[in-house]
Amino acid sequence: MKKIEHIGIAVRNLEEANKTYKSLLGFEHYKTEAVESDGVMTSFFTCGESKIELLEATSPESPVAKFIEKRGEGIHHIAFYVDDIVAEMARLKNEGFTVLSEKPKRGADNKWVAFLHPKSAHGVLIELCQEITEDH
Amino acid sequence: MKKIEHIGIAVRNLEEANKTYKSLLGFEHYKTEAVESDGVMTSFFTCGESKIELLEATSPESPVAKFIEKRGEGIHHIAFYVDDIVAEMARLKNEGFTVLSEKPKRGADNKWVAFLHPKSAHGVLIELCQEITEDH
Repeated sequence: MKKIEHIGIAVRNLEEANKTYKSLLGFEHYKTEAVESDGVMTSFFTCGESKIELLEATSPESPVAKFIEKRGEGIHHIAFYVDDIVAEMARLKNEGFTVLSEKPKRGADNKWVAFLHPKSAHGVLIELCQEITEDH
Repeated sequence: MKKIEHIGIAVRNLEEANKTYKSLLGFEHYKTEAVESDGVMTSFFTCGESKIELLEATSPESPVAKFIEKRGEGIHHIAFYVDDIVAEMARLKNEGFTVLSEKPKRGADNKWVAFLHPKSAHGVLIELCQEITEDH
């Protein structure tokens, strides 16, 4: 794990949350992006070498909608940047973590992503991510 | 806000959680520290320019004990590093955030700390922190 790539925060209303996090951080988000496979609209703020990702559900079946229904708004996941996501998925599976997919999938912000079940990590949903490049 | 200083994770058993996060991150925590005023024992892992702080309650009245009782283990707060915590507290109060103390207090890892109420920030407990130095 090289660094915290981002912290994902589940919010009810992206427009309002963008205003709040602009006030908090002192600057604007640098982009918004829909991730249709996860049923979310996202926005990203830079913070040092990491990012804050705000997530609004775009369908009631979205994991983010279910999270908010159960627990309210709040921190949804931590994403760590890795150099070789396939190797890290294998290593962590071997260490006893529950990896939630067989292969990485395309996530927001041009990344390959994979998740570890929160029960593996003391209640924390962990995302691994790696930049998508031309060769892989 | 210069960077994410750390992410605080509430756990039931620090020893077990240290093992889990060692497996996850690939390296050991660099220190443990009791913060008696908060009723917690903490451990810290470095991750890039940020840290992971694991928190185990040492008394049933600890905010971390209450958090776990209500929500289970999981991410407790995000801490941002600031250069001037007193100025940031005033700025954020003026922006409409609920700052939970009048003055910064001494926290773990040689820091002045202050918290913003989660209702101010879409369900996220925000900590501000600044290194304690000889002159302030």
